[in-house]
Amino acid sequence: MGRIICCGLGPGDPDLMSVRADREVRAAKHVAYFRKKGRPGQARRIVEGMLAADVSEYPMEYPVTTEIAFDSPDYVRLLSGFYDEWAERLARLARAIDVVVLCEGDPYFYGSFMHLHARLQGRVEIEVIAGIPGMAGCWNSVGQPIALGDDVTTVLMGTLAEDELERRMRNSDALVVMKMGRNLTKVRRALASAGRLAGAWLVERGTMPGERVARLIDVDGADCPYFAIVLVHGHGQRMVSAE
Amino acid sequence: MGRIICCGLGPGDPDLMSVRADREVRAAKHVAYFRKKGRPGQARRIVEGMLAADVSEYPMEYPVTTEIAFDSPDYVRLLSGFYDEWAERLARLARAIDVVVLCEGDPYFYGSFMHLHARLQGRVEIEVIAGIPGMAGCWNSVGQPIALGDDVTTVLMGTLAEDELERRMRNSDALVVMKMGRNLTKVRRALASAGRLAGAWLVERGTMPGERVARLIDVDGADCPYFAIVLVHGHGQRMVSAE
Repeated sequence: MGRIICCGLGPGDPDLMSVRADREVRAAKHVAYFRKKGRPGQARRIVEGMLAADVSEYPMEYPVTTEIAFDSPDYVRLLSGFYDEWAERLARLARAIDVVVLCEGDPYFYGSFMHLHARLQGRVEIEVIAGIPGMAGCWNSVGQPIALGDDVTTVLMGTLAEDELERRMRNSDALVVMKMGRNLTKVRRALASAGRLAGAWLVERGTMPGERVARLIDVDGADCPYFAIVLVHGHGQRMVSAE
Repeated sequence: MGRIICCGLGPGDPDLMSVRADREVRAAKHVAYFRKKGRPGQARRIVEGMLAADVSEYPMEYPVTTEIAFDSPDYVRLLSGFYDEWAERLARLARAIDVVVLCEGDPYFYGSFMHLHARLQGRVEIEVIAGIPGMAGCWNSVGQPIALGDDVTTVLMGTLAEDELERRMRNSDALVVMKMGRNLTKVRRALASAGRLAGAWLVERGTMPGERVARLIDVDGADCPYFAIVLVHGHGQRMVSAE
């Protein structure tokens, strides 16, 4: 009986992978990872140069279509079928062998692997190895504490509605906004309305080659990578607190 | 000229330290770490067996007093003086040598080192190595995704007032509550008032020897370790979203 080992790869710099994940990736005979069709895939790129020469690779390519909107019921059905199919394939593979699934960041924190994790429950043994979340790599790149003392930290997805974003941005000390891409303009507007734009940072490709760290107010574009992250630092409510 | 290298040690299991932190800890000639007087210290315990035989250790012992309340201005002054003094000592040491400061979790995320980081700005070169936050180790121990899809995640300190805790617990999908200890009873009441107690987990010593993972509703005690964490999982708003 094999297992499925989901390795959290951390924010992107292979040196920030955990010792355990590093060991599993290097020892893997079979690795699977998500990617967009025609792209190398972020997870695969992180482990470049680490895989054994004779490794078998299973790229799990997201179904793409230019005819259906991403948020339509048809696309949701398509994606759901894709996850069903890969859960079935991985479960079958893991009857005989160990399969290492490569996941950016921390798998349990908004990770795509969770779509498979839910479908694989009770069918196969799964080990999940924690990773440094992408957001932690990003705030490390800015080089300031994201939250201190009694600060409240809120993690928001850029996909939320503008009024919800604004309300929540107003109501938190530290802020992390994920899933940027074409949501950047909306997120910028929401931050401005909430009075938080001046303190906001945009981090693209955090800890990776081509990293860009900028004050959001200095960024002109209407678009950025989907995995870029916006940060607003807390200032430490009641900061020197008892340990 | 030496440097100060602040190593995020992750949630506790040494195998979850980053490859870079692991390398720095093993190569260190001088290590500093916070601890309570008379205790080994959590950070020091994590690296047990990893340090060089001839390492010099600098335990930074929190000032204790049984006569002053933790949240009194006098205690804050005492603690502030303690941080001033250690910032001075580390800055002086780092003129000649590299000093590795050991920090649990991720240093930039509510880390005690930030009290020194602020005081050391411009005086010495500082490198901070990201780590897996304690909360990520804890949700990994529960074995379910903490947040998915468009979930909002809120990180709260158990030191906050009960009414603020309740309001924020009501108003978030996924919840993380840190700094438990004697705040456990208040946090439990706030979760109950917010209708979130049934889904809450308490994780003590996450990823470490003696780890305890329990539904909070099954926990009787009024107290638990200060670094224990309470988690309430999100359920994935608009879960199968486009990547």
